[in-house]
Amino acid sequence: MSSEQASGLVPERTLGIAVLGLGNVGSEVVRLLTAHADELQARVGARLEIKGIAVRNVSPDRGVPVELLTDDPAALVSRDDVDIVVEVFGGIEPVRTLILNALNSGKSVVTANKALLADYTGELAAVADAADLDLYFEAAVAGAIPVVRPLMQSLAGDRVKRVVGIVNGTTNFILSAMGETGADYAETLAEASRLGYAEADPTADVEGFDAAAKAAILASIAFHTRVTASDVYREGISEISAEDLASAADLDCTIKLLAICERVTDDTGRERVSARVYPALLPNAHPLSAVNGAFNAVVVEAEAAGRLMFYGQGAGGAPTASAVLGDLVSAARNKVHGGKGPDESTYAKLPVMSIGDTPTRYYVRMEVADRTGVLAAVAQEFANHGVSISTVRQSGLADAATLVVVTHRAPDDALSKTVAALTSRDFVNTVTSVIRLEGTSEE
Amino acid sequence: MSSEQASGLVPERTLGIAVLGLGNVGSEVVRLLTAHADELQARVGARLEIKGIAVRNVSPDRGVPVELLTDDPAALVSRDDVDIVVEVFGGIEPVRTLILNALNSGKSVVTANKALLADYTGELAAVADAADLDLYFEAAVAGAIPVVRPLMQSLAGDRVKRVVGIVNGTTNFILSAMGETGADYAETLAEASRLGYAEADPTADVEGFDAAAKAAILASIAFHTRVTASDVYREGISEISAEDLASAADLDCTIKLLAICERVTDDTGRERVSARVYPALLPNAHPLSAVNGAFNAVVVEAEAAGRLMFYGQGAGGAPTASAVLGDLVSAARNKVHGGKGPDESTYAKLPVMSIGDTPTRYYVRMEVADRTGVLAAVAQEFANHGVSISTVRQSGLADAATLVVVTHRAPDDALSKTVAALTSRDFVNTVTSVIRLEGTSEE
Repeated sequence: MSSEQASGLVPERTLGIAVLGLGNVGSEVVRLLTAHADELQARVGARLEIKGIAVRNVSPDRGVPVELLTDDPAALVSRDDVDIVVEVFGGIEPVRTLILNALNSGKSVVTANKALLADYTGELAAVADAADLDLYFEAAVAGAIPVVRPLMQSLAGDRVKRVVGIVNGTTNFILSAMGETGADYAETLAEASRLGYAEADPTADVEGFDAAAKAAILASIAFHTRVTASDVYREGISEISAEDLASAADLDCTIKLLAICERVTDDTGRERVSARVYPALLPNAHPLSAVNGAFNAVVVEAEAAGRLMFYGQGAGGAPTASAVLGDLVSAARNKVHGGKGPDESTYAKLPVMSIGDTPTRYYVRMEVADRTGVLAAVAQEFANHGVSISTVRQSGLADAATLVVVTHRAPDDALSKTVAALTSRDFVNTVTSVIRLEGTSEE
Repeated sequence: MSSEQASGLVPERTLGIAVLGLGNVGSEVVRLLTAHADELQARVGARLEIKGIAVRNVSPDRGVPVELLTDDPAALVSRDDVDIVVEVFGGIEPVRTLILNALNSGKSVVTANKALLADYTGELAAVADAADLDLYFEAAVAGAIPVVRPLMQSLAGDRVKRVVGIVNGTTNFILSAMGETGADYAETLAEASRLGYAEADPTADVEGFDAAAKAAILASIAFHTRVTASDVYREGISEISAEDLASAADLDCTIKLLAICERVTDDTGRERVSARVYPALLPNAHPLSAVNGAFNAVVVEAEAAGRLMFYGQGAGGAPTASAVLGDLVSAARNKVHGGKGPDESTYAKLPVMSIGDTPTRYYVRMEVADRTGVLAAVAQEFANHGVSISTVRQSGLADAATLVVVTHRAPDDALSKTVAALTSRDFVNTVTSVIRLEGTSEE
C-alpha cells in the first residue's frame, strides 16, 4: 500500500465479486474471501468485495450477511459494480445463460462447473476471448490440485503425449475399500454413501460421467483440440467384483477408474486424440496405483518434461474453494494490471479416435472346460482376431478351470470381437470379467 | 491465424528471443523452439524467432546455425529486435548485470538461475515490476515440475502452511542408492559421479547449497516474504552413514535431504518463516519417502487445499527446458496480449526464525556403557533441557549398548544442548548420529 493510500488520499480500488451458489464450495469461497481479505488485497492490488451471493432460497440462517443474498442471479451478474462472477451452482441451465450474460456485460468468470465446460467451453470461451475477459476453471478438474494451469501454462512450450488421472474421489474410495476389505461393490457403495463419500444418486460418479466430463476438459487443453463429453468413451465401476480385485492383486496390479487422454497415431500416420474413462488394471509399480481413498492424482507425460504427477484432494468444499480463489486472484490481477489468462486453444483440431480403433490391453477371466486342447483353442481365438497374448494363468480342479489371459496391445475392436467369439464357443462356460490393462511399459 | 494473415495481407508478428547459454538446457531450449515453432506460434499468437545465442566460444560445431552465435551477450540482450531474454548461463556475474540490462532495455526475462534468484530476486523483480516486464523462473526450482506457478498463482487465494521438497537429484540419488545397496557415502558418491549424477565438484549438491537456494525461492513465494540463501539453515549429507540408513529402516523410516519452508508461530505468538535444508528421517508412510533416484517432489500444505504433491524430473536438459519454454510462452503471450505475470510479493515481511528457535524432532544414536542406571541418566539429560522423549530403543551386548532416542518436538537449541551435554557424560562413549525427524503427524 502506498503512503497516499495509507493516508486516504487515493481511494482504495475495489473489485466487485458475485458468487453464484452457497453450497459446500460457495460457503468456503465466501469464508476465505472474508477471512483473508487483507492478504488477497495485497496480492491483487485491489480489495475484493462480495457484492451479492445468489441462492435458491434467501433465508437469514445461511451463515453470511442476509443482505448479500439474492434469489435473482440474473440481476446479480449484470450489476455494474460486479467485475468478476464466481459460479459454483453446478448444472447446465440456467448457469450457461448466466455465464454468457456475465461475459457479455464485461465480467470475467471463474467456474468449477465440469459438466458445463465439458460441453460448452467452446461457446463460453469464444465470448470471453472476443471480449478480452477471463474464463478460468481450475476447480473443475481435480479440486485443489493444480492441473489446468500446469497444462495450459507450465507445459505450454512442451508437447503433451498422455494425461492419465484418477479424477473421481467416490469411485476411488469404493475401489480402494473393495481392495482392502474384500467386500463386494454393492456393500461398499452403501458404506461409501453412509460415510458421505457417495451421493444419494451415485450414478454420475459410479458410471463415470463425472470423470468423462473431466477427461473432455483435460483432453481439450492438453491437445489444443475441442473434445466434448460425447467424444469420451465411458464405462463405470458397477461391474467390478471383489473377485476382480483379488485377481488383480495376484497379477501385482490394482483396479482404478482412469480418465485417459492420449495423442495416438492411427494406421494412416495421422495423429488423433483418444479420450476414455473405464476401470482398468494398473500395475502396483505405477505411481497412480498408490493413490487411495478419496484422493485424486493426475499423471502428465510430455515430450521434454517426461512424467509428472500431481496429487491431492480432488473434492470437498475447502480444496475446491482454494482452486476457485486461485483463479479469482488471477482474474482480479488481470482486471487491475491488464492482460488476460490463456485463451481457449483449439488450433490442433485433432480428430477423435473411436474406442474401437484405440489400442489397449485386455485382461480376460473365463471359466473353461478342463480338457485337453482347450488352452490351444482359446489361444487360437485370440490369434484369429490378430490379438497377441502376453500371459496365461490357469487354475482349477475337477472338470472346470479358470483361465486368465492378459493380451498385448491391440485395437479395442479386435479385443472385443475376440471376447464375443470366445463367449460363443462350447468349451468356454462363461467369460467372467473383461477389464482393460493400463500403465504398463507397453504403450 | 486469421484469413488476412493466411493470405499474407497482414505481416506475421514476430517476437525476438535471445538465449544466453548453450549447455544441456540451452541446447534443448533451442531445439524445442525450432522443432515446435508452428505450435508455439499458434499458442502465443506470434512467431518466436531466435535472434542470437550467447556462448563463451563461438565455433561452428555447436549444432546450431553458427551465425546465431555470439560471444557478446551484453550486445545481444540490448538489441532492439530482442523482446525476451532466456538466461541459462548460471552463476551470479555477469548474469546479474545482463538481466538488469535486459530489463532496463524493455525485455522480459526467463531464467533458470536458482543461485542468482536466491540472492537477487528483490533487485531484479523491482526493476521488472517498475518497467511492467516479466521475470519468470519456474525452471529454477525442481526442473520440469510446476511448483513456482502453482505457488504464485494456483494457491494465490489460499494460505500456505508448509512446503517440503526433495529438490536436489544428486543427493536423492546417493541416499536412495545407499538405502538400496548398504554401501557407504564415499563409495556411493563415486558411483554417482561415474554415472553422471554428481558433478566433478559435488559440493554445491552434497553440502545442500543447491537445495538451500531453492528453499529460499520457495519460502519467498510461499510466504510473500523475501528470504535469501543466507536465511536458510543448511546441512549436507556427507555425514550420513550406511548405518544411519539401516537404523532408519528399523524405525520404518528413510533418510532424505529435505528443503523445508514453514510458517511457524514463535513464543510471542508472532508468525515467522523457517527455511532449512538438512538430511532427515522421514516415515515410510510419508509421500516423499517413495521419491527415489534422481526424481524430485515437492509437498505443499495449504489451509484450504490441504496437502498437494508435485512429482517429476527435477533436472536434466529436456525437463528444465520444458519449464523454460512454458515461461517463455507466458512472457510472449503477455508481450502480444498485454498484462504481466505475478509481481514479486513480499508484503507479509515475516521475520526469519533462527534454527535454534525452530521446533524439530531429533533421532540420537549413541554408544553407552551397559550398566544399571544409564538409561535413567540419559533420560535425565533430555529432561534437564526440557526435551520430551518419544521412543527409546536399546540393543547391545557385553558392557556396551547402542541406544536410539527419538524425541518429541522441541526447539533445536534445546536438542543440540542436550546432545552436547550427553557427549560430555562418562557413561556415553560416543554419540554416533544426530539426525532430525520430519514428516510425522507431530507438527
